[in-house]
Amino acid sequence: MAKEYPLDKYIEVIETFLEDPEHSPYSDLEVAKALKKIAQEEPERFGEYLKKIPNEFLGDIALELPEKYLRGVIDHLPNKDLVEVVQELESDDATDLLQDIEEIDQDKAEKIFSSLDKEDQKEITRLKSYEEDEAGAHMQTELFSANIDEKILDAISRLKRLKKEGELENIHQVFITGTFNKLMFTVPLEDLLTFDFEKSFREELTGREEDFKPIIVRDTDDIKEVAHLFREHDLSVVPVVNEQNELVGRITSDDIYDIIQESATEQIYNLAGVDDEAEEEENIVEAGKKRGIWLFVNLLTAILASIVIQMFDQTIQAYVALAVLMPIVASMGGNAGTQTLTVTVRRLALGEIDLSHAKETIKKEVLLSLANGFVFAVVLGLIALIWFKQPLLGLVIGASMIINLFAAGFFGAVIPLVLKRLHIDPAVGSTVILTTVTDVVGFFSFLGLASWILVK
Amino acid sequence: MAKEYPLDKYIEVIETFLEDPEHSPYSDLEVAKALKKIAQEEPERFGEYLKKIPNEFLGDIALELPEKYLRGVIDHLPNKDLVEVVQELESDDATDLLQDIEEIDQDKAEKIFSSLDKEDQKEITRLKSYEEDEAGAHMQTELFSANIDEKILDAISRLKRLKKEGELENIHQVFITGTFNKLMFTVPLEDLLTFDFEKSFREELTGREEDFKPIIVRDTDDIKEVAHLFREHDLSVVPVVNEQNELVGRITSDDIYDIIQESATEQIYNLAGVDDEAEEEENIVEAGKKRGIWLFVNLLTAILASIVIQMFDQTIQAYVALAVLMPIVASMGGNAGTQTLTVTVRRLALGEIDLSHAKETIKKEVLLSLANGFVFAVVLGLIALIWFKQPLLGLVIGASMIINLFAAGFFGAVIPLVLKRLHIDPAVGSTVILTTVTDVVGFFSFLGLASWILVK
Repeated sequence: MAKEYPLDKYIEVIETFLEDPEHSPYSDLEVAKALKKIAQEEPERFGEYLKKIPNEFLGDIALELPEKYLRGVIDHLPNKDLVEVVQELESDDATDLLQDIEEIDQDKAEKIFSSLDKEDQKEITRLKSYEEDEAGAHMQTELFSANIDEKILDAISRLKRLKKEGELENIHQVFITGTFNKLMFTVPLEDLLTFDFEKSFREELTGREEDFKPIIVRDTDDIKEVAHLFREHDLSVVPVVNEQNELVGRITSDDIYDIIQESATEQIYNLAGVDDEAEEEENIVEAGKKRGIWLFVNLLTAILASIVIQMFDQTIQAYVALAVLMPIVASMGGNAGTQTLTVTVRRLALGEIDLSHAKETIKKEVLLSLANGFVFAVVLGLIALIWFKQPLLGLVIGASMIINLFAAGFFGAVIPLVLKRLHIDPAVGSTVILTTVTDVVGFFSFLGLASWILVK
Repeated sequence: MAKEYPLDKYIEVIETFLEDPEHSPYSDLEVAKALKKIAQEEPERFGEYLKKIPNEFLGDIALELPEKYLRGVIDHLPNKDLVEVVQELESDDATDLLQDIEEIDQDKAEKIFSSLDKEDQKEITRLKSYEEDEAGAHMQTELFSANIDEKILDAISRLKRLKKEGELENIHQVFITGTFNKLMFTVPLEDLLTFDFEKSFREELTGREEDFKPIIVRDTDDIKEVAHLFREHDLSVVPVVNEQNELVGRITSDDIYDIIQESATEQIYNLAGVDDEAEEEENIVEAGKKRGIWLFVNLLTAILASIVIQMFDQTIQAYVALAVLMPIVASMGGNAGTQTLTVTVRRLALGEIDLSHAKETIKKEVLLSLANGFVFAVVLGLIALIWFKQPLLGLVIGASMIINLFAAGFFGAVIPLVLKRLHIDPAVGSTVILTTVTDVVGFFSFLGLASWILVK
């Protein structure tokens, strides 16, 4: 075996997992990664392993596979097994998996769906009705609740039974409901432990209502806002209610890790002109197209900059030093602007600033950029002077540096704020708008000042 | 009141909070933000409010204040109160606050520390001994543990007492230890509820050891790895042990939200040449300096590009169209390279790829970039042809586009992979290295080909 990372390592992961899936040292993601490698190298073995993995565990693993390999799962397994795989998942995951399958093979997805039991069908239909960015799309419907008048011991017996049946996991609190399943209180299990089990919840909670008033989210709330709420209040679980205040689900910390992580990835990618979904699905054609679109936009703005340069082609022919120096001013503007833009976009996303801070943000950013503008005006002015022995050229480049770094600070802050005001994601497209500004201002101010000061 | 966002709103937040701090509808962060606004507008009122906020709550709020305002807190409160503020915090927060105070006023920090009781001093000293990136620095020492031979009912009574004393919060499991406080098992409270309280833990756990084997982290583990672990295994709490496998603390989901969020911010900022710590402390001088350093590095690389241009100044003087078009090739290379770089940096951070995927990553990225290179070579070649009516110029710019987008894909992938191999954060400085390459290759290939093909 001359290969650096032989397949053996991945086969071993799968074999170890198969020995005792319940207590596997590997996470679903690790098993999925190993399967992916095996699928790439030995598709047949991939099929064999798929059949060996118990349906109870296959769903969670399948959810971690990029689309390309999920297709393999669907092709290798009979519908009967796929139904079981979906059924074994928690409601939110089952919905996700079914939607993933739908994107690959709608027919198959429909067949699986119609084979699920009525209860599961109803839940999946409801969860599917939420938009991707709504809290409801990320909640799970499995939770532990009790009526306010229920005897605590009875609730605990029910918990015991549900846990034994494998219906419930990761229970940190019991949600206390009133008539019509309306959410009233949340009782952490650590408090429940200290209650008198012979009493009803109402008896225990009377007089301490304030202590158990839950932080609630609506099913239609923006999931990013929910993630904010988790962070601000250090939550680990939150109950989800509908318009009628009925308890419909819960969102847990693991959903929030993913939301925080994915929002950040989306933002980083968008700032760079990359589509996060296409990249993550490892769909190389789609990813390439999306990147191409942003490159095309960039081409247009670069041509715009070229048109500005062309306005001064006579001047450049007279002073070729201008052609040598002109990219510096544009480049510095682009960099300073990107600094400002990035900080503004990120702080908006983190909720550290909002539109009410627009003025002070712009002021601060202009100040920062301008301060650096003056420093680099002097530095670059001196460099130009020494390099080309022309004092006026140093003056021109210094002045245009100040102008462009002012523009960089101003537009780096204004562009995301305006996008936000227009309810457009401030990370999308802002970099390209910004560099258009700093390129155009950079070239125009430098060449314009040069033709005015040097040529006359 | 003509102001758009009058101070009244913030005063109301504080007044509402003060009415019933225990059940405030506002999070610590919201109260901190309101205080900050008030400090900016009416420093005196800020001081008054500080004195009104009970010490029990002030610590958590102070932790959310940027350094500048924390200084105000320290100046306004007598040491006696500050000691109480620190004492009321959980061990990890107390350590953080004391370290924040230390950075502002070392003398004061020492005085506060020496007034704490011996137990707190010991814990803070231990927590301070960890590096910022170690799990130990992020754990709290308050947790609920029980000896394997303890009767379950006794442990629950202890929990009841500790909760009443306000010593424990957010307890989701009991950590079961053996001799010398060595961690053996983790029992979620949902399971504890189903146990027979009259038995000892050993009696209940015998035969089910596998089900309660905990996922553990070491106090010296990298905190980013710990965050990975939380995500992969959907954890909400993890016990922390030392070298001797003794239970020393726990890390909870709220720490992980912060770690994920902060790592992402750090990465976004580093890619843009911005220092995350200086920006967050709202230390404008420090932030400006740090930005200036990266701008200076960028200046050097821009000068390098200028030197390349100067090599061809004769050619430019002969064909001024070259000066007009040359920024396009460099700009497209910079953009395509940034796309590749960003995806590679992010996927490395997310653990989606590692060094073992180096070859396939580079291959994929070169392919993607090159595919777009060919498309835009044709597009730009035609544009140049139509614009300047010179077929050879179209050929030159098309060819240099292909060369530069190849370089963009190759170096966009290679630079972060090499930095990672050298154990340098792939987000730091990689953008500047990359744009140096794409500028130099862009200008050199375009002007070089032009002087070779057009001039001869």
